[in-house]
Amino acid sequence: MKKVCVLGSTGSVGKQTLKIIRTLKDVKISILCAHSNYKLLLKQAEEFGVKKLCLTDRNAYLKLPYSQKKIFFSPDEIERIFEHDFDILFVASAGSTAIKLIYKALKLKKTVAIANKEAIVMAGDILIKEAKKEEAKIIPVDSEHSALFQILENFPHKAEGLTITSSGGAIAGANKKSITPQVILRHPVWKMGAKITVDSSTGMNKGLEVIEAHHLFSFPFEKISVILHREAIVHGIVEFKDGSSIAYLSPPTMEIPIKYALTYPEKTFLPEKLNYKNLKFSFEKFPEEKYPCFSLALYAGKKGGIYPSVLCGANETAVQHFLKGKISFYKISQIIEKVLAKTPKIRYSIDGVLEAEKWAKSEAMRFV
Amino acid sequence: MKKVCVLGSTGSVGKQTLKIIRTLKDVKISILCAHSNYKLLLKQAEEFGVKKLCLTDRNAYLKLPYSQKKIFFSPDEIERIFEHDFDILFVASAGSTAIKLIYKALKLKKTVAIANKEAIVMAGDILIKEAKKEEAKIIPVDSEHSALFQILENFPHKAEGLTITSSGGAIAGANKKSITPQVILRHPVWKMGAKITVDSSTGMNKGLEVIEAHHLFSFPFEKISVILHREAIVHGIVEFKDGSSIAYLSPPTMEIPIKYALTYPEKTFLPEKLNYKNLKFSFEKFPEEKYPCFSLALYAGKKGGIYPSVLCGANETAVQHFLKGKISFYKISQIIEKVLAKTPKIRYSIDGVLEAEKWAKSEAMRFV
Repeated sequence: MKKVCVLGSTGSVGKQTLKIIRTLKDVKISILCAHSNYKLLLKQAEEFGVKKLCLTDRNAYLKLPYSQKKIFFSPDEIERIFEHDFDILFVASAGSTAIKLIYKALKLKKTVAIANKEAIVMAGDILIKEAKKEEAKIIPVDSEHSALFQILENFPHKAEGLTITSSGGAIAGANKKSITPQVILRHPVWKMGAKITVDSSTGMNKGLEVIEAHHLFSFPFEKISVILHREAIVHGIVEFKDGSSIAYLSPPTMEIPIKYALTYPEKTFLPEKLNYKNLKFSFEKFPEEKYPCFSLALYAGKKGGIYPSVLCGANETAVQHFLKGKISFYKISQIIEKVLAKTPKIRYSIDGVLEAEKWAKSEAMRFV
Repeated sequence: MKKVCVLGSTGSVGKQTLKIIRTLKDVKISILCAHSNYKLLLKQAEEFGVKKLCLTDRNAYLKLPYSQKKIFFSPDEIERIFEHDFDILFVASAGSTAIKLIYKALKLKKTVAIANKEAIVMAGDILIKEAKKEEAKIIPVDSEHSALFQILENFPHKAEGLTITSSGGAIAGANKKSITPQVILRHPVWKMGAKITVDSSTGMNKGLEVIEAHHLFSFPFEKISVILHREAIVHGIVEFKDGSSIAYLSPPTMEIPIKYALTYPEKTFLPEKLNYKNLKFSFEKFPEEKYPCFSLALYAGKKGGIYPSVLCGANETAVQHFLKGKISFYKISQIIEKVLAKTPKIRYSIDGVLEAEKWAKSEAMRFV
């Protein structure tokens, strides 16, 4: 029996994770954490028989009925999840809140299944080093990284190149000036939260994925490629020096990587299947010039240190304002660029990356 | 240092094998065997410093200059190759001549690298059983089987389905009645010998590959699929029960699987590379109805026993006559069908499959 602590259980990936756990008789939830949606969290707790819950949003916690408070950890107490027994920290939450918990989980040699981008992007060097030191496993849940992970985990040969695919986002080919949040949120392939759907459209999401791949697989940036693949069937390709490549294919559903992370190293049945008799694939050059945040992300990733944290912070503020209709689509990258240009000197550490992100969020406000 | 005995060194695959061995400093040729081309064989022997050669064609052997005879084994002495030290029997020869040598090599726990189709198709049950018993390795060299082998060898998960691709052969979509040997020998993708190019056009080659996959990977026929994939970049796909698939991709050159078989389990550098930025793939239903020999092959494969040997024998005679312009393209499958219908009772054994093939070759003559 594997015991799981799910962070972000009321979000898009979190709900899919619980849907999968419902089907797995050898996986049990020990703890559920959400940001603010305590009503759904209570419903989930009841269904899965979970005795301990956390809320990371202070206001939501303060609003809890008194009778509920005893089963909740407050935002300040969140590290007390480690007083409870679990094997896998499943990080389905967005943003940087999870970084400290991931770091502590790795220190305790727990497996970390990670659908969250910011943690690895911002603190990859520290987290991967800790995972290696403690021999703790980090299992990526993003479809692209799950694809690469599965190939690299199983093939003994040294990889020469990694390729992740991009379906192009909601606005591939569109004129960016007329783009509203409504247009972007109609993503053609993946059903995701609002922020990540915007990030897909700006190229930020793919840029963050390259940074993640760089950390997760200890691979130099110049050997990681992105190709445009609108069909979203091939998620990752590993190239070997003999001219051969291994590609990972699956229907575009997060359920497959979520289930793999929960049942690792086993694979278990899912009804989703590809029908090869009617598939057409195309791979094209990823049009970087159409995705202004992509090159900003690579720039920050290559600079390293706290730059990716500044990137994430500025992006979060800019995207929030875009979603509220306060700035244009184009302004997102401009704001990030301006904030990155003013990156302060902050020491690269767990606290440092969080401080840098916070600085960037408020700095970005000045350009909104 | 790996020592190799190459069977069929003067043929199409044999020459490519020697081209690869030329680049490998840890691989040395101990023995070279050819059917009849002793002039080229002598040149190869000189280049690679090989002291022992074989000819399997009696007439060619008899024509050898007396001074050369001492370095050649005669067709009757061919099993004396085992008096010499080698690690890998590299079977680049076509036809069934190699079956006994493969069987003996496996008994002696040698690795068998196999580009030959007939041996596994005709005697698969016996050879695979022997390989398992002696823990000897059979490494397929065909691009499709090398692809599947590499995936199955490295992924620990039980496969749910195997898919091999077909580029469609030289006459995909053509009107079969007007097809001459000249048309067929212009294969669009693979450079191969005349017989196998015809076999690609009739569907026999793909049918034999399914039978081979059935034996090599101990996989039931109903879980092995063929899909049309004209680009010949994806060679094999393994499907898993979680809905994911792993595909093996490479440029369409035999050099990659040849090199892998020689350097197994390592992969070594080859300059051939795929450029993903300009790839388009399509997968379509394999149009079985256009390839009359495909279903005949599956029929024989599923019947098992000596049926595949009868299939191979009848096909060889029919294709020879087609290449000489004596029968039409359409007649090939008709002859095989008639011969298969008369399959005699012969016990399934190494001698039995050879006897069945011989019977089928001469029986096919009656329908030419």
